[in-house]
Amino acid sequence: MAESAAATIASRVRVVLVRPREAQNVGAAARAMKNMGLARLVLVDAAGFDEGRAAVLAVHARDVLAARRHVASLGEAVADCGLVVGTSGRASAARGGAATPRALAPIVLAAAAANDVALVFGPEDHGLALEELKLCQHAITIPTADAYTSLNLAQAVAVCAYELWTAAAPPAPARTLASHERRELLWTKLEAGLQAVSFLHGDAAPAVMRRLRAILGRAALDDEEVQMLLGVARQMTWAGTRARSPDRN
Amino acid sequence: MAESAAATIASRVRVVLVRPREAQNVGAAARAMKNMGLARLVLVDAAGFDEGRAAVLAVHARDVLAARRHVASLGEAVADCGLVVGTSGRASAARGGAATPRALAPIVLAAAAANDVALVFGPEDHGLALEELKLCQHAITIPTADAYTSLNLAQAVAVCAYELWTAAAPPAPARTLASHERRELLWTKLEAGLQAVSFLHGDAAPAVMRRLRAILGRAALDDEEVQMLLGVARQMTWAGTRARSPDRN
Repeated sequence: MAESAAATIASRVRVVLVRPREAQNVGAAARAMKNMGLARLVLVDAAGFDEGRAAVLAVHARDVLAARRHVASLGEAVADCGLVVGTSGRASAARGGAATPRALAPIVLAAAAANDVALVFGPEDHGLALEELKLCQHAITIPTADAYTSLNLAQAVAVCAYELWTAAAPPAPARTLASHERRELLWTKLEAGLQAVSFLHGDAAPAVMRRLRAILGRAALDDEEVQMLLGVARQMTWAGTRARSPDRN
Repeated sequence: MAESAAATIASRVRVVLVRPREAQNVGAAARAMKNMGLARLVLVDAAGFDEGRAAVLAVHARDVLAARRHVASLGEAVADCGLVVGTSGRASAARGGAATPRALAPIVLAAAAANDVALVFGPEDHGLALEELKLCQHAITIPTADAYTSLNLAQAVAVCAYELWTAAAPPAPARTLASHERRELLWTKLEAGLQAVSFLHGDAAPAVMRRLRAILGRAALDDEEVQMLLGVARQMTWAGTRARSPDRN
């Protein structure tokens, strides 16, 4: 299921860059696409595109760059797409009620299961024209601080592709934490070890152990870590016992 | 509350770039920082840093660039930080159990309410050294496709800053959808209008209306849109009635 979602976005989702001015941005966008499992790049009206300059920033995504399509118009770029999503700055967004990339990612993913889908980005200076946004069924606006709302083109591609990949990708394997039983064993052995090395003594001992439990509790130990700390406790007990033994030399 | 979270990350969270090789990446990182409400940039061991080259990509974030600090070591960069978060590639992550930027964003935000916090990024080629990751209390790894796991430095900064901003920023105002009562009024008036222009007739009419309701239902209309469509219905009724009137000329 999750694997097929990743395969789906690779085959079904295209990134469409309309009139990109800087070849370096196209290269950086291609890199972000490959990082996030996307493979299909379409350039609209990109006359004089300099592949060499783009390739420097594409680094290991030159295959994405090499497989790009060139078309003359946005209409042509998205002609066979069931879903077309355009990115827009906040001014246009205020008019049309744009969604965040996070809110739209599951919608894109669902559509991509049975349709070609386009994510459309406008030129660096002014973004998509209103006539171009009209061709998009949804608009995305990336949330930003008020002080500076305009993202670099390739970074906008990176954020949108990242949201899509995060929605499509299998969750990272979670750490398996040590069980209650193992943790309690650790506290018992640690207490014995700390007594053996003469750290714990007197009335304060229970309060000190409570603080140690709190610290290690927050640290959310896994089994290997508990095993290691049991080793520490064991050696404290060994050393403390031996230190008190009359025949220690 | 939300406003103060944004103010908090601006004043408390610093981005630390360790031995950055490309001034352009530093500039692009500064832009992403300002886009996402961050202001404090620290460069570690960045001898020969070319501010002019960086400024071209910083664009309107030259203030962030100009306010940067230069220090000799990572230890110096984070000396006064209560929380230090390092970014790492997947190889190191597999050893240490790194978190995603999304999972760590609320932890960073909570710590930043009362502490200086550092987000640390390594050099372009090999990332942070193991000795440097040791200074970090948490490690972040950005999820990527297997085919290409290494992100551009500035794009990694952009994704992490975006996650932090999204966690700190107030949610975008949601659209207020038209009420059930208004929608039902629309269906009634639309049906009358479609009958008036002789589109709806015969036994198929109820099924056609159900499909129209389904289409407009999926579109999730707001009040202004309902108002506009009521205007369409009214004019259909007017035109249809007039078309049938014996004195229409």
